[in-house]
Amino acid sequence: MNLLYAGKTKDVYEGEGDTVVLKFKDDVTGTDGVFDPGANTVGLTIDGMGQSGLRMTTFFFEKMAEHGVATHFVSSNIEEATMTVKKATMFGNGLEVICRYRAVGSFYRRYGQYCEEGQTLDAFVEVTLKDDERNDPPISKDGLVMLGLLTAEEYDELEQMTKQISGIVKEELAKRQLELYDIKLEFGRDSEGALMLIDEISGGNMRAYGKDGYVEPLQLEKLMLA
Amino acid sequence: MNLLYAGKTKDVYEGEGDTVVLKFKDDVTGTDGVFDPGANTVGLTIDGMGQSGLRMTTFFFEKMAEHGVATHFVSSNIEEATMTVKKATMFGNGLEVICRYRAVGSFYRRYGQYCEEGQTLDAFVEVTLKDDERNDPPISKDGLVMLGLLTAEEYDELEQMTKQISGIVKEELAKRQLELYDIKLEFGRDSEGALMLIDEISGGNMRAYGKDGYVEPLQLEKLMLA
Repeated sequence: MNLLYAGKTKDVYEGEGDTVVLKFKDDVTGTDGVFDPGANTVGLTIDGMGQSGLRMTTFFFEKMAEHGVATHFVSSNIEEATMTVKKATMFGNGLEVICRYRAVGSFYRRYGQYCEEGQTLDAFVEVTLKDDERNDPPISKDGLVMLGLLTAEEYDELEQMTKQISGIVKEELAKRQLELYDIKLEFGRDSEGALMLIDEISGGNMRAYGKDGYVEPLQLEKLMLA
Repeated sequence: MNLLYAGKTKDVYEGEGDTVVLKFKDDVTGTDGVFDPGANTVGLTIDGMGQSGLRMTTFFFEKMAEHGVATHFVSSNIEEATMTVKKATMFGNGLEVICRYRAVGSFYRRYGQYCEEGQTLDAFVEVTLKDDERNDPPISKDGLVMLGLLTAEEYDELEQMTKQISGIVKEELAKRQLELYDIKLEFGRDSEGALMLIDEISGGNMRAYGKDGYVEPLQLEKLMLA
């Protein structure tokens, strides 16, 4: 297959027709060898991580289809750790859309003056620009519109979809006595320009807590798909 | 007078009745001895800076009154570099509301991926929390509402007032062939809970450019009040 782009945790290959193929790697983001879904660098490599992330992503993308949420998902090949997806156009060089149910991570680091660590948040949505060099800066709706990355109507739709998707994930976790603290999603436009969820939904882009605290991505997949 | 609070560029004293007295100091914010209105530390001391800032603030607060904009201004004593103002309650420990007409400073540092340095912006409003320890983090409307700092309606009013006030300042500068690039405002609630502009409007909290480039605060006051 023809490599189009080598990412931090996934490589992108040319697919047939209007598709591309994502190869899930065993690399995960983190800092100094410690996993951190919000980090910008590859922190460590975990055997089986790629397949595990793909199993979770397949599970959740199929759930999204059941709920009528548009995603780029076409099919998965777990053995090869590849996922065939519809081609998407990005908003600029990519946005990350975060939905928060607890004040942890960068939210707490920024707003600790006005919140307790871990306090509940009501599906708080925020957007950051994918920009390693500038440390993924947060940006407001007005900022996104002013820079021409999306329209005000698209932002509202993005926010509504983010809350719906995150709510579905939260509910699935709750069925296994797990709590979703926050989750990071990516969106693109399909060939007709309609919004769809892209990238992945796995332990690598969410924080899940159980009765013994934070649940690592591999463990999360075992608990979710048991 | 009884000192209530010693700030970076102003001290606050108890006033008569429902007022406080602000003493404008000769200290200005900056980094390594270079003036920077966006900086969080006192960078240098400039003789006459306090009186100059007060003359500008008095000029602009009187302009605001002409336009029906609510401010905390009561009266000034230029010789003593003091301004008597109405008592205000803050939003939390204070917000800074920035209005931008050009992509410079922290806007360009954050969003340089999608803008040219100095490109025009359409009165872009953003809010940061006053929090030296956390480097004055930017915060969205949703974030302000979720943390209980203000209501969605108050935010909209704050944004509208910011655009009106900044537009008045921009127009006054334009009369002297100067261009306003950005300006930082502060707001509080009066004793009835109504929004009003507080703090100051001077060269110390805006970036003004003339035909020879950036205009320093003292020079700006000379050009404006000549």
